[in-house]
Amino acid sequence: MSNTFGSMIRMTVFGESHGPAVGVVLDGLAPGIPVDEDAVRHELDLRRPADSLSTARREADEFVIESGVFRGMTTGTPVAIVIPNHDARSGDYSYGVARPGHADLTARLRYGGFEDYRGGGHFSGRLTAPIAAAGGILRGMLKAKGILIGTHICSLMRIYDRAFGDYAADIEALHNRAFPVLDDGAADAMRAVIEAARAEGDSVGGMLETAVLGIPGGVGEPFFDSVESVLSHLMFSVPAVKSVEFGEGVNFANLRGSEANDAIRTDGEDGFSLVTNHSGGIGGGITNGAPILMRLTVRATPTIAKAQDSVNFVTHENVVCESRGRHDPCVAHRARAAVDALSALGIADLLAVRYGPEWLRA
Amino acid sequence: MSNTFGSMIRMTVFGESHGPAVGVVLDGLAPGIPVDEDAVRHELDLRRPADSLSTARREADEFVIESGVFRGMTTGTPVAIVIPNHDARSGDYSYGVARPGHADLTARLRYGGFEDYRGGGHFSGRLTAPIAAAGGILRGMLKAKGILIGTHICSLMRIYDRAFGDYAADIEALHNRAFPVLDDGAADAMRAVIEAARAEGDSVGGMLETAVLGIPGGVGEPFFDSVESVLSHLMFSVPAVKSVEFGEGVNFANLRGSEANDAIRTDGEDGFSLVTNHSGGIGGGITNGAPILMRLTVRATPTIAKAQDSVNFVTHENVVCESRGRHDPCVAHRARAAVDALSALGIADLLAVRYGPEWLRA
Amino acid sequence: MSNTFGSMIRMTVFGESHGPAVGVVLDGLAPGIPVDEDAVRHELDLRRPADSLSTARREADEFVIESGVFRGMTTGTPVAIVIPNHDARSGDYSYGVARPGHADLTARLRYGGFEDYRGGGHFSGRLTAPIAAAGGILRGMLKAKGILIGTHICSLMRIYDRAFGDYAADIEALHNRAFPVLDDGAADAMRAVIEAARAEGDSVGGMLETAVLGIPGGVGEPFFDSVESVLSHLMFSVPAVKSVEFGEGVNFANLRGSEANDAIRTDGEDGFSLVTNHSGGIGGGITNGAPILMRLTVRATPTIAKAQDSVNFVTHENVVCESRGRHDPCVAHRARAAVDALSALGIADLLAVRYGPEWLRA
Amino acid sequence: MSNTFGSMIRMTVFGESHGPAVGVVLDGLAPGIPVDEDAVRHELDLRRPADSLSTARREADEFVIESGVFRGMTTGTPVAIVIPNHDARSGDYSYGVARPGHADLTARLRYGGFEDYRGGGHFSGRLTAPIAAAGGILRGMLKAKGILIGTHICSLMRIYDRAFGDYAADIEALHNRAFPVLDDGAADAMRAVIEAARAEGDSVGGMLETAVLGIPGGVGEPFFDSVESVLSHLMFSVPAVKSVEFGEGVNFANLRGSEANDAIRTDGEDGFSLVTNHSGGIGGGITNGAPILMRLTVRATPTIAKAQDSVNFVTHENVVCESRGRHDPCVAHRARAAVDALSALGIADLLAVRYGPEWLRA
Repeated sequence: MSNTFGSMIRMTVFGESHGPAVGVVLDGLAPGIPVDEDAVRHELDLRRPADSLSTARREADEFVIESGVFRGMTTGTPVAIVIPNHDARSGDYSYGVARPGHADLTARLRYGGFEDYRGGGHFSGRLTAPIAAAGGILRGMLKAKGILIGTHICSLMRIYDRAFGDYAADIEALHNRAFPVLDDGAADAMRAVIEAARAEGDSVGGMLETAVLGIPGGVGEPFFDSVESVLSHLMFSVPAVKSVEFGEGVNFANLRGSEANDAIRTDGEDGFSLVTNHSGGIGGGITNGAPILMRLTVRATPTIAKAQDSVNFVTHENVVCESRGRHDPCVAHRARAAVDALSALGIADLLAVRYGPEWLRA
Repeated sequence: MSNTFGSMIRMTVFGESHGPAVGVVLDGLAPGIPVDEDAVRHELDLRRPADSLSTARREADEFVIESGVFRGMTTGTPVAIVIPNHDARSGDYSYGVARPGHADLTARLRYGGFEDYRGGGHFSGRLTAPIAAAGGILRGMLKAKGILIGTHICSLMRIYDRAFGDYAADIEALHNRAFPVLDDGAADAMRAVIEAARAEGDSVGGMLETAVLGIPGGVGEPFFDSVESVLSHLMFSVPAVKSVEFGEGVNFANLRGSEANDAIRTDGEDGFSLVTNHSGGIGGGITNGAPILMRLTVRATPTIAKAQDSVNFVTHENVVCESRGRHDPCVAHRARAAVDALSALGIADLLAVRYGPEWLRA
Repeated sequence: MSNTFGSMIRMTVFGESHGPAVGVVLDGLAPGIPVDEDAVRHELDLRRPADSLSTARREADEFVIESGVFRGMTTGTPVAIVIPNHDARSGDYSYGVARPGHADLTARLRYGGFEDYRGGGHFSGRLTAPIAAAGGILRGMLKAKGILIGTHICSLMRIYDRAFGDYAADIEALHNRAFPVLDDGAADAMRAVIEAARAEGDSVGGMLETAVLGIPGGVGEPFFDSVESVLSHLMFSVPAVKSVEFGEGVNFANLRGSEANDAIRTDGEDGFSLVTNHSGGIGGGITNGAPILMRLTVRATPTIAKAQDSVNFVTHENVVCESRGRHDPCVAHRARAAVDALSALGIADLLAVRYGPEWLRA
Repeated sequence: MSNTFGSMIRMTVFGESHGPAVGVVLDGLAPGIPVDEDAVRHELDLRRPADSLSTARREADEFVIESGVFRGMTTGTPVAIVIPNHDARSGDYSYGVARPGHADLTARLRYGGFEDYRGGGHFSGRLTAPIAAAGGILRGMLKAKGILIGTHICSLMRIYDRAFGDYAADIEALHNRAFPVLDDGAADAMRAVIEAARAEGDSVGGMLETAVLGIPGGVGEPFFDSVESVLSHLMFSVPAVKSVEFGEGVNFANLRGSEANDAIRTDGEDGFSLVTNHSGGIGGGITNGAPILMRLTVRATPTIAKAQDSVNFVTHENVVCESRGRHDPCVAHRARAAVDALSALGIADLLAVRYGPEWLRA
């Protein structure tokens, strides 16, 4: 609780890292939305540990669409996707030692010892697999309406990617890269930092930036369901996300009104445009038609090889924790697929609330 | 839509700046919670424009508790609080010119010209008055359970307040200050910057930091209702909030795992403590018992006296917008009461989901 | 909890019989819906004790629309309606004796003695006043889309009204009658039975039948939000309702499939019609375009003048309860306005979910 | 939409009759609830077509618990149960002819031709299989708290079963009978009527009565979530249910207040009892501690062998519909498992809202 989110388009997630399967139920999709299984697979590939930057665990990520799709299109009833778990070496995990930075201790406090602790259980990044799979459907649905979503690592240990330029081209390019960085030099430098951390048994954090292009103005449901509220709610569901900003974000604390406001120009008819986009495409919690710009911080993977002071909460002893399990030196790039998928969920939900669910059928 | 938030303890807000009244309905409070009208009034006072730092509009903020309270205690049925609007000079407002940075344009796109545009209508900061009033009840309820919430301006135009030290004492002190800054020198410097902006017809942004002290470990409802998700959802409802961070927040992008993880120590029995609090009191979306630390950016008031390029969306002309209405050169300090109130709502709701609503009756 | 209902169009109710006010917040209405205050007043009049059939309490039912309406039309933000309580003689009520059939005992069990027991508190029929007021807006909105809702007393103590004939004409006629019965002879007989019960200090139950005319086919959100589920949920919120049926209802237990099925005919194009309407306009939880027919039983007013065995739950004594307060010998006719209003809410909500909220703007 | 129900304990259903699988996700169960797979299997057996009274389709009903259970107990995270579909003879079904009484036509209107029409798709009684499976967990959880739920066919084509007597014994007996009738003579007569209908290619309806024993007083969440509202919402989700009554139900229309009220007696301490149970265990939408009594009508199976007038909504022709597929002459007895399961869901949800979810861990 609560593993369901959404007003009109709802996602329910389930599963544990070492249980039989992880999965997702997408409810509220209009009938007649094309479902491209290759697109689903592509999102799963983007999330999957692909190379030396990621854990050695090979996840097959075969998925089964159990319901809600008929002859390649949604029926209007729930789409359930199940992804069996394989290659789970449960022997790597024992219970009692709280790995610092991980959810072991808080899960114990919350679930009282009944939690399936193996591999992080319900707190594993494994849960982002079915979310990414759902993203394949949701992103395709939005793309058919001219709405594109893309995410890059905008900064990582003080290495900075370039800003979005040509949004459509950049989003397309990112979607074809396992390591989502726009500038090749920045990508190389980030990879080097990640490799260095791995070599030392350490890990690194990073910041992602997501753009939503092509969303109409006038979307958002204040007071409580501002665009920022809905998107941040979803982003902070992703394990390891610790900040969410829109537009100038934290920098607004240092801007005067005269610097922060976006001037507006009209084309003399119904159209208008913003001269700048400090607001990140959102005013008063409602889209203004400019691209939505959101940034989020993904903290460094808690599981590291270094010795750390911790406790065994079963024996009530202080211990030194040295993780030997497989782990990622960085999860920012892998988190991208889930971030894109959940952004698509939030945007689709707000659009369905605004215009009705059938508006989303191209 | 949606003007209701909460799973077990729900807040519904209503009202426009220049309509008859603004108000709030709080549903789901356990019966037998003491309601202190002085505490309600105090929160309204903290939100009210108090001195030269704020707009000249005098808001009486008389409130009426219309239901749900009997003999000074909650009955368990909805508590409705209505605050009549007075002193509204609607003549100051005309329709068509989109004030840059304000919600005029997005409201037009969303509500199609039917919006009550006077004084910002539903997008006015006036909506935070009933929220602050509800905070008086919610904060009192939490305090009786040993849970304290306090907010200070941690930075404003590159002037920085000191960090929280003795949480309980600092929270108490902040609650007695109209301008919520811990360090007196920083407060003076911030006031000077705000006054300077006012003198130039400009405004400034700032960053707030909220601490929640005394919340038990094991509270939070992942996957989707992580503590961060619930609190950020509420914070981004407050007009002008553009970022939300927890613990190290954006700084996590620059931290290695070995720097970001909080070591844990046990007292040899059920108790344990975190040596540092980089995580801001939350792991895996669940509290760990350390204080929750959240920061949020409040952008500069959009309404400024300076000339700005904009449009008249009725006549479809480019115009120069020069606001002459009353306005605040900074709203960070006034936003504090709503931030405290909504933090209290989110925390109370999560506690009620975790332990049942009656747990909150001291 | 829970005093809010609805997915896209949400109603929140608050208030106690002898508190300062009762009220309602309607959220999710599209902007630009006309609000006719006379229509609101008319619904309140239909609900108000009008003649010798009802309690002697005179309720002024002045209402204030506090928000969400501007220049006679909805703004798209919450519409709050507050109705002050007057003429409350709280001295008539003391605490401890559970009036049989009333909610005194269950309220005590639920609220632990903190409930505002005066006049039934939150359980009073008084709560139906703001609901009826909201009905004035909701019914007007639906009527502009060609959807009519009307309710009559179809049976009362084995006296039966005639069935609906010309739906539109019957619904119009009912809307102009304080005692909603189609057949004048049946109306007279029912009134006589009610008067006789009053003379003996007793009360009577009755059954209401509601028709919804003009709703398009294809509306309803199974699995869980079938039309029947949504409407019955709302009907069973009305105090005293103890059964809800659709179409043949309980009689289906005695019908064979060949008798229960409605044959279907087509006009050779997109249109079709059902030869009979056993299903009450709903198949598989979704409208088929025929009128929705719903029946509900309103139990006899629990408060009667006769002596009844009961308990004082404060002193733990068996007592004989003899109510001397004002009361209605029948509430079936007065419940009609709330039944119409909540039917309108349920239908409007389902339409908004199906077609988007703006579809409801004529 | 909406395929999720519940405030604190939520059920999400998915699947189509002839798709890969049907399934359910149960969210919000406290950690540490025992999960007895045999109990799950028993509920599936009670729902399965068992003998000559039911369709010839053999459904294997192998189920897989994909998540949320570890070492035989709930973990506190979602429990997903998937039941693969086998033995689906899709060749029996073609598209276009609306079977009278079935959801073919309304599904077409709702889903626009994208629905998976094979075997009734999402509208098939097949969806009650995962619900019954979930019932095995939910009922076991409630039983451990002393709360028993049982359902019998109280009437079928004017044959009447005896009323509940010794609730605990009767509920136990019903749980061991494939044909849930208390009186053997009534059972034989009902079976004969069902067989006769089958012989004629027809079907029959029936009425179920459900008792909930052992629920504490003070449970229920008015205004909108009265016990009746929550249970009726769930009951009307079951395909074919067309009425729901509590206590005297429709008979209240013919009862005076002096006949309808339940007298109350105290034991001189905290305990009390109701002399009669006309109210069906519920007053003001809140339990009073007496057994909850609910009745619901299950209409006759729409699919019959007899010729019926109908339409082909693809060719826009009037046709004569003669179903040759497998079908049940009665579904009242098979619906019992879903009714028990959904009753358990509603009761468990209300208890979790009232006392917190962990109260349900015995």
